[in-house]
Amino acid sequence: MHEFDIIHRYFNVEQTAAEVLLGVGDDAALLQLPPSERLVVSTDAFVQNVHFFANASAENVGHKALAVNLSDMAAMGARPVAFTLALGMPEVDETWIAGFSKGLLALADRHGCALMGGDTTRSPVVMATVTVLGALPKDTPALLRSGAQVGDAMWVTGAAHAGLGDARLFLEAEQGAVQLPEAVYAHARQRMERPAPRVAMGQALRGVASAALDISDGALADVQHILKASGKKTGVALGAEINASAVLNGAFASDATRAFWRTLPEQQRLHWQLNAGDDYELLFTAAPEKEAQVQAAAQQAGLVARKLGVITASGVTELRYDGGRTERWNRHDTGGFAHF
Amino acid sequence: MHEFDIIHRYFNVEQTAAEVLLGVGDDAALLQLPPSERLVVSTDAFVQNVHFFANASAENVGHKALAVNLSDMAAMGARPVAFTLALGMPEVDETWIAGFSKGLLALADRHGCALMGGDTTRSPVVMATVTVLGALPKDTPALLRSGAQVGDAMWVTGAAHAGLGDARLFLEAEQGAVQLPEAVYAHARQRMERPAPRVAMGQALRGVASAALDISDGALADVQHILKASGKKTGVALGAEINASAVLNGAFASDATRAFWRTLPEQQRLHWQLNAGDDYELLFTAAPEKEAQVQAAAQQAGLVARKLGVITASGVTELRYDGGRTERWNRHDTGGFAHF
Repeated sequence: MHEFDIIHRYFNVEQTAAEVLLGVGDDAALLQLPPSERLVVSTDAFVQNVHFFANASAENVGHKALAVNLSDMAAMGARPVAFTLALGMPEVDETWIAGFSKGLLALADRHGCALMGGDTTRSPVVMATVTVLGALPKDTPALLRSGAQVGDAMWVTGAAHAGLGDARLFLEAEQGAVQLPEAVYAHARQRMERPAPRVAMGQALRGVASAALDISDGALADVQHILKASGKKTGVALGAEINASAVLNGAFASDATRAFWRTLPEQQRLHWQLNAGDDYELLFTAAPEKEAQVQAAAQQAGLVARKLGVITASGVTELRYDGGRTERWNRHDTGGFAHF
Repeated sequence: MHEFDIIHRYFNVEQTAAEVLLGVGDDAALLQLPPSERLVVSTDAFVQNVHFFANASAENVGHKALAVNLSDMAAMGARPVAFTLALGMPEVDETWIAGFSKGLLALADRHGCALMGGDTTRSPVVMATVTVLGALPKDTPALLRSGAQVGDAMWVTGAAHAGLGDARLFLEAEQGAVQLPEAVYAHARQRMERPAPRVAMGQALRGVASAALDISDGALADVQHILKASGKKTGVALGAEINASAVLNGAFASDATRAFWRTLPEQQRLHWQLNAGDDYELLFTAAPEKEAQVQAAAQQAGLVARKLGVITASGVTELRYDGGRTERWNRHDTGGFAHF
């Protein structure tokens, strides 16, 4: 099957975004945002054996290839508008492409985000690079990494079915480091392969959060990005105090995994929950007096906001336990996911 | 070396586009186009062993990864503004990355197109997916594929040093199908590895060309895209008459290759010049009375415009020879590059 046939059969969808003047089929797409909005742009590659296992279903691969990009829109507080897809495959497997397209377009549809263009190519493994374009009102500050202040509370999003480290459990199970009860495995796998981008929450946090990003390197590694960017801006060596006891008490766990976490040694629980690279929850900061607004935003988005800790002027990241004991976090012990 | 170090060391450039409000370093980039312009978006993947040979220099790989995308902007008549890069590599080779970045950013700089964001990842071979954003005034029609009319002349861009099939000669030489004199080889390789996107020409053709695209599948295969899109719009089964004798007379050849082409059999010359997938010249149509404007646009862009033929209502593509003989072109004999 020829490249053009693939595009026409599986990806030449009716546009679902009013902003797209011209979609798939020409040398480029044409868009028009209202003059009251700024454009938000993000790109993420999604590569077999690096970002997903070869045994992931085509539908889940399609879902997640877009989800990780929508998660970036959420982290900026942006409304997703449209995206491009560069899809590489070793060969044409129509069943696979149909599944991929189904997972991708179902998520796109749910967020009113139109596929506006793309490229298909041969490649040694499956790779899907998505670039997503979003919109942000001019009169609203974007949710940057650089706005955190000393004293701000740090929050992560979650839900009864969504906790920190869910996906990490799947990863560790696949690598043989842990054996999971069947229901825990199924939940962990679902959370790894079908993350739900927190798009509504991101928009609800406009004007509420002082800084935000999405957790893709592990919560503590991502905290460092906020500390660094915000510290550079404020001229203060920022630090963070993390509610370690709350983590150990299961406050950040999903219902499906909470009991299982308790069977693991404490250090491992902390490490796996706070250094999990595939959570795709929002990690954000907000002034302490905005707690009610944070909770209202979460409720509006059908989520909960869990308080991870507080921004300090200490220049270091510390785990704080009930009773007052603290422990310094060292990125090299428990660092986030590194590609190289 | 960690992903973030790569980005900061080699790609965290000063922005060169006024439209980029926030570049590399956050979850997404922020852009603001003037309200008088529409946004133009295109994405192309560039994969080792598919789009380029493993022995291509890093600098040339960086150049071409962006060039093929800028070529899409040219084909729309758009002004390139900014781009994202998703770069996959099997391992971190700093010398290679430095070369890649140099080639990429030099071309970006020449076109005032800012690197605004990206992603680096591990992948089995080098792959660089670029998404480029451009701008087009609202009061100017984009150069679409669908505007050609019966009677329009078909043109391709070129220059003394740039002809159809240059890159094809390099490809055939690498595959052992032909042996090139040293100077021809050097020229062909340069044209394959460092195509010059016809960005100024694309903008000069606004309001002059009725349809346009860039030649990336081979001139005749790309003619089909115009015939199909324009035919669908006009309701006429469009065809094309190609000046085959002009091709054989060397009118579309670069100075460096013209003598060599004459040493090849006629059918092979036609085939290789008209079905070369890496020309990255603009192929466009214009009403016959616009010939002077076409030539003026080419001169303004430092190029020449070569008349490839004419749009007909025949529904087929024919090669026309001096003396009146015609021959029907069959896509399956001499079709463009197919990925699968």
